[in-house]
Amino acid sequence: MSTTRRVGRPRAQKRPESGLQPREEVLAAAAELFTTHGYTATTTRAVAERAGLRQASMYHYFGGKEAILAALLEGTVRPSLEIAQELVSRTEAAAEARLWALCHSDVMLLCSGPHNLGALYLLPEVQAERFTDFHRFRRELKASYGELLTATEPGAALGAEDLALRTDLLFGLTESVILIRRTGPDRDPQALAPATADAALRVAGVTEHALTRLRREGGRLLATQQG
Amino acid sequence: MSTTRRVGRPRAQKRPESGLQPREEVLAAAAELFTTHGYTATTTRAVAERAGLRQASMYHYFGGKEAILAALLEGTVRPSLEIAQELVSRTEAAAEARLWALCHSDVMLLCSGPHNLGALYLLPEVQAERFTDFHRFRRELKASYGELLTATEPGAALGAEDLALRTDLLFGLTESVILIRRTGPDRDPQALAPATADAALRVAGVTEHALTRLRREGGRLLATQQG
Repeated sequence: MSTTRRVGRPRAQKRPESGLQPREEVLAAAAELFTTHGYTATTTRAVAERAGLRQASMYHYFGGKEAILAALLEGTVRPSLEIAQELVSRTEAAAEARLWALCHSDVMLLCSGPHNLGALYLLPEVQAERFTDFHRFRRELKASYGELLTATEPGAALGAEDLALRTDLLFGLTESVILIRRTGPDRDPQALAPATADAALRVAGVTEHALTRLRREGGRLLATQQG
Repeated sequence: MSTTRRVGRPRAQKRPESGLQPREEVLAAAAELFTTHGYTATTTRAVAERAGLRQASMYHYFGGKEAILAALLEGTVRPSLEIAQELVSRTEAAAEARLWALCHSDVMLLCSGPHNLGALYLLPEVQAERFTDFHRFRRELKASYGELLTATEPGAALGAEDLALRTDLLFGLTESVILIRRTGPDRDPQALAPATADAALRVAGVTEHALTRLRREGGRLLATQQG
């Protein structure tokens, strides 16, 4: 496979230059190897070597390759779920603005880090029992999109089936940055995130006229959340 | 891996019950194994066995595992590209209606067949040189979305950077059915395709008011294309 990097030789026990704790060092090494070399083709030994740890030390942090993958996958949804839960509760703001803010920060998370971890969602291995937490977090995150959509003015007028379809599409649009990032790794997340959030409001049925105001309100929500 | 099927024992030379030609038999077997068992974990021997062929006979049709994957990937974009090229040329119809028709038929293609082949897009192996035809077809398909978007009324008002971003999002929205299908394999494509095409027009900036008419015109375009 001409595009994948070769797994490096064993390194010194520590990589002090990264400033990472050993657990994070393992996750960073696995993120690189799983996305460039492939999950199936990567051994726990290769991950340990890349992380500069002995295999036995790595098992102190993770029970095995599946546990590492589970931690990486959960890291792509759990922070967004926390933001989503806060946004759902901030009922003083327009639901449309909260949906904009959720989509924006979800895109930023999916585009964060040097490796496109969302690409791992489609591994056949990820269907397994071991990944129930990831699937539950992701389901709950999608449900938050649905809850915010239902609270929007156009969403309130939709029937149950239309709501379910529209929620799938909103969530799909957000996650499609995984595919976009794969094709164009140089796309700037700072441009992609607001554009995706705008598109999400359009899919929700918000008019161009209302969009300008709601986008501004969504930006303010983000600012107060991050602050 | 608890969720993957075991590769069957060697079968009789032919599987007359499927009614498929040997080449298609190989593709069907590989589609199943690559999406359920994983690409890396699947050997050409396993594909040949599942297809009911001797390995040597399989090599008569495909040079190896990469060639089989390339054929499967190209099959997910080439038919849509042909439809796209026809739609781009049908300038007597509204660009919005043509975009609706393209998105609809692209979703139907991505949801066709028993296996979610789009899941293979994100394999690290697919970055390789061997898959340039697939990447070229997919790039040309996305360019057709961009061309139709530019010809729409709201698209004509966009600057180059906004057009590029909006095209990425339109194409991403369409391809997100790969992620939607993975999470909810029972989603009916007959409902998902028009809902996605509607969402695409909303992302393009079409108003709810105009959507009803354009959706109808898009449906007519599809009917005359399929006829």
